[in-house]
Amino acid sequence: MEGVNQIYQYSIISSLAQGICADGLPVFQALRYGDHGLGTLAGLDGEVIIIDGQAFQYTSTGGVRALEESDITAFLMVTFFEPSKAVTLPYLTHETLMREMSSLYPSTANHFFAIRVDAVFPHITYRVAPRQNHHRETLAEVVHRQSVRSFKEQQGTIFGFYSPAFTEAFSVVGLHLHFMSEDRKAGGHVLGFQARDVSLSGAVITKYHVELPETEDFNSGVIVEPDKGMIRSAEGLDQ
Amino acid sequence: MEGVNQIYQYSIISSLAQGICADGLPVFQALRYGDHGLGTLAGLDGEVIIIDGQAFQYTSTGGVRALEESDITAFLMVTFFEPSKAVTLPYLTHETLMREMSSLYPSTANHFFAIRVDAVFPHITYRVAPRQNHHRETLAEVVHRQSVRSFKEQQGTIFGFYSPAFTEAFSVVGLHLHFMSEDRKAGGHVLGFQARDVSLSGAVITKYHVELPETEDFNSGVIVEPDKGMIRSAEGLDQ
Repeated sequence: MEGVNQIYQYSIISSLAQGICADGLPVFQALRYGDHGLGTLAGLDGEVIIIDGQAFQYTSTGGVRALEESDITAFLMVTFFEPSKAVTLPYLTHETLMREMSSLYPSTANHFFAIRVDAVFPHITYRVAPRQNHHRETLAEVVHRQSVRSFKEQQGTIFGFYSPAFTEAFSVVGLHLHFMSEDRKAGGHVLGFQARDVSLSGAVITKYHVELPETEDFNSGVIVEPDKGMIRSAEGLDQ
Repeated sequence: MEGVNQIYQYSIISSLAQGICADGLPVFQALRYGDHGLGTLAGLDGEVIIIDGQAFQYTSTGGVRALEESDITAFLMVTFFEPSKAVTLPYLTHETLMREMSSLYPSTANHFFAIRVDAVFPHITYRVAPRQNHHRETLAEVVHRQSVRSFKEQQGTIFGFYSPAFTEAFSVVGLHLHFMSEDRKAGGHVLGFQARDVSLSGAVITKYHVELPETEDFNSGVIVEPDKGMIRSAEGLDQ
């Protein structure tokens, strides 16, 4: 599975939705398959952002730290990102991002995209999920306790993926984006943004590699497809 | 994506369900990723069976032919199968197969299995789907015209996959098995069987590689998740 612009994904979103995410894979093992991406740690502990091969955790207390050998991911999507198209734009918002992507890639209805936005964000809102406070606490319950932060006039980078409609049980359908400020001191899971002086770049992804956990936790109950609305709501897509 | 007991899958079942399967990939390209598997050709033309690296088509007129360079698959699942467990059994049926697999692999709730059954089949029923008779004819419409055949006292091999519940949009949830008679003159998509003098072998699969078509047809409409009952019915799982 070598090659650029392919997705390597560890575990599936429906496992997190059911709260089956106590354990996982050493995050550095997953970085063999990509240098850009996003995810979370075991127990849904905060938000993980991978930029230029470096992995960081935004903690629910507002901290930022570089991930270490001992950190375990419960869900991760990474790619070796090589933009196939790029454009500069004076202005962009969360709501207009897919319109711009669709004009860059007009005949793509059912593929993934990798998306990067470098910009000044006059306004950006993001969340950091807290750690599960008991085994099997579901994603919906966890994000009920999330910290939402917003910043003004932040320079930074958004990186993430668009996943097509049929991937509901595997991935977050639609946009799933994490933010990192230029000074690497702030960030999280994007809930909304306005951006100016934008460099938008993207790549179409047709190769999707999924590795299912071999942990006891993953096999402790049958994973069913989550309610479509629940994932959208838990990921902040209805806000 | 080298390595044994991984699934390489070309396209997704929900694309076929919507009848988006006019075109695809030269089948021999897919055989780089596995030597055992099953699938269909462009336009849902018959059933494809891959055994020991050789690919065959069962046509809806009852014929069998070795696939050629020019044959195009619209959906294929293959693996380099190396059984991790094997057992001989005096008797096995379609209904008891997963009970046997679960006792071979007791703690696996959410993984794929590759499954091979070599046996004498006192009774086996299978179908061959006909070619779409118009563009975008759905899988449910196509199998409404399928030929169902049954044989008695056939020696042969069943090969296929068990896919976990959350793969509904990607794969056929549960058992998806194709049959090949020992003389390679009969076979198709298994609807039911009784077997004696059985060699059952299997492997757990945790790595799942999906390649989405880059054809114009695949991008001609948004693929949505099919109704769960429709796939079960179209694949003969309710019979």
